[in-house]
Amino acid sequence: MPKTAAYAAQNAHSPLAPFSIDRRDPGPDEVLIDILYCGVCHSDIHQARDEWGGSIFPMVPGHEIVGRVARAGANVKTFNVGDAVGVGCFVDSCRECAQCKAGEEQYCDQGMTGTYNSTERGSGAPTYGGYSTRITVDQAYVLRIPESIPLDRAAPLLCAGITTYSPLRHYGVKAGDELAVVGLGGLGHMAVKLAVAMGARVTVLSTSESKREAALELGAHAFAATRDKDTLKRLGRSFDFVIDTVSGEHDYNAYLSLLKVDGTMVLLGVPEKPAPVAAGALIMQRRKLGGSLIGGIRETQEMLDFCAEHGVASDIELIGIESINEAYERMIKGDVRYRFVIDIASLENAA
Amino acid sequence: MPKTAAYAAQNAHSPLAPFSIDRRDPGPDEVLIDILYCGVCHSDIHQARDEWGGSIFPMVPGHEIVGRVARAGANVKTFNVGDAVGVGCFVDSCRECAQCKAGEEQYCDQGMTGTYNSTERGSGAPTYGGYSTRITVDQAYVLRIPESIPLDRAAPLLCAGITTYSPLRHYGVKAGDELAVVGLGGLGHMAVKLAVAMGARVTVLSTSESKREAALELGAHAFAATRDKDTLKRLGRSFDFVIDTVSGEHDYNAYLSLLKVDGTMVLLGVPEKPAPVAAGALIMQRRKLGGSLIGGIRETQEMLDFCAEHGVASDIELIGIESINEAYERMIKGDVRYRFVIDIASLENAA
Repeated sequence: MPKTAAYAAQNAHSPLAPFSIDRRDPGPDEVLIDILYCGVCHSDIHQARDEWGGSIFPMVPGHEIVGRVARAGANVKTFNVGDAVGVGCFVDSCRECAQCKAGEEQYCDQGMTGTYNSTERGSGAPTYGGYSTRITVDQAYVLRIPESIPLDRAAPLLCAGITTYSPLRHYGVKAGDELAVVGLGGLGHMAVKLAVAMGARVTVLSTSESKREAALELGAHAFAATRDKDTLKRLGRSFDFVIDTVSGEHDYNAYLSLLKVDGTMVLLGVPEKPAPVAAGALIMQRRKLGGSLIGGIRETQEMLDFCAEHGVASDIELIGIESINEAYERMIKGDVRYRFVIDIASLENAA
Repeated sequence: MPKTAAYAAQNAHSPLAPFSIDRRDPGPDEVLIDILYCGVCHSDIHQARDEWGGSIFPMVPGHEIVGRVARAGANVKTFNVGDAVGVGCFVDSCRECAQCKAGEEQYCDQGMTGTYNSTERGSGAPTYGGYSTRITVDQAYVLRIPESIPLDRAAPLLCAGITTYSPLRHYGVKAGDELAVVGLGGLGHMAVKLAVAMGARVTVLSTSESKREAALELGAHAFAATRDKDTLKRLGRSFDFVIDTVSGEHDYNAYLSLLKVDGTMVLLGVPEKPAPVAAGALIMQRRKLGGSLIGGIRETQEMLDFCAEHGVASDIELIGIESINEAYERMIKGDVRYRFVIDIASLENAA
């Protein structure tokens, strides 16, 4: 197969720049995908800059991949050439452990194989992500994108979408529940849309008033600025769920106090340092503090179908690959509504 | 009714000493109980010394009360004179809120009425606890003690027993689950006995080897000393549940790391300061950190019946009331296996 155009970070300190990678011909169980769009996740920045340690360079980031099937192996029955398909955060797992068998591959005992910044289970070759024109993936890790979702707006569903959908389902959010979303970025905006579609009554909590209008535009039923201590007091014990998408330092106990008896707060962001939790806040109202990590293939497909059924898609800013380094800087400042998506057509010209 | 003999703290700094209180004649829905035994809970010390603030003096502590019905009001059908009965941590609640209606009176919206250090909902009179020879309580807040449980060893079930039974049920502990108990005091020893009776495989975790023998005597299947870092590493991701009964400062993240995917750690102790929780520990394996507060009347009765069926009772040291101040000092040093229980017969002589 000819060389595949990509954008890569050569090391933790270099900007992303054109790079050429090999993609393998699809095996009998694999599909070759012509990539159309790739979302830009904040974790792309952390990994490209080796902020979590252990990064593998050169690195081609990108795990919110949408494209069309270019070629399919002999055993591939469910995908045909031309089908709209997606690839999310992982492209393989052990397939043997209890979690893999339960369709929760993200919690694979041996660790999932990341779509990039990881190594193939068989060959040990590095994996390269979606900032590239094509990718070869085992059919068991490929999602079908319903054609009713605009393909560029579908891309962030593969990470931001499933990361919020899975905990809403796992922790049992249902119609009529009072649910608060903390933080209104890539994850938060999807949490609002999905929870509203599930019938919850959604309140967006943000430090200042500045996001009120945006929150209501996304479908939130209410907004509250939490810098005002009276607000937290007024909202005490009023939510069944708090979905916390913030990765900056913040006070968990203030948000725990907003939960009713038996309420659950779900952490999706990872602050740099552990944050103090008061045992009494959990004990006195039997509250729970939980976490959740992306979602399995089965549930990701369920989420995509749910989005198609309910007309949900991400709100995005479509960019050319040449703007990726600038996009990273804007994301660090929180200046994006709500997800950058790369138009991969731009890569053919740039590379 | 003649004066009732009791032991009381006159203020936060005085030792407990003889005191005389009024108990009301039982109303139509009430029972008058001749108290036989009263367990000594660590919270008795905190409240008698006003360590949580807001203590009401003079204070007659005690909320692990077992006795026999002396008189019953006209509407009382389920208790007869002479029946063995118990009173736990609360003697009233609003009876109207969702929690009260669900039989979870401990989470009453308006707050439960504590058995002591509280005020009666109607009269506003202070409530006095079980360090006394009798008590008058509404039948809706009285438990039946199965006669097969030795009455002195039944007393701590009313607080230590239900505080551990309720979370085991609420969080879904079942036969075959791997469960760790952290801390082997009044709560911990009941957690071991109850979880073993439920069919869980129980491991006691303690900082040093000193409690190994005691843990195995209680029925634990295994013991591990956690001061050794290799132990924590070896036990990583091996438990479905961690029941944390420790109220001293300790590292939540170390224990969270012992949970499998979807495992739950339940906090029952309240350390003085909030303790740091690493979001990643919850997110990467979808773990939960929860709490639980005593239990409702319905579930307390269920627990007592469960204990009778499974031959479970507290391990106690029976003391005379004249030893109560010394007992407090020993409890502070952790020198009790596993609960002091006051033989209330001693009070008639002492008072």
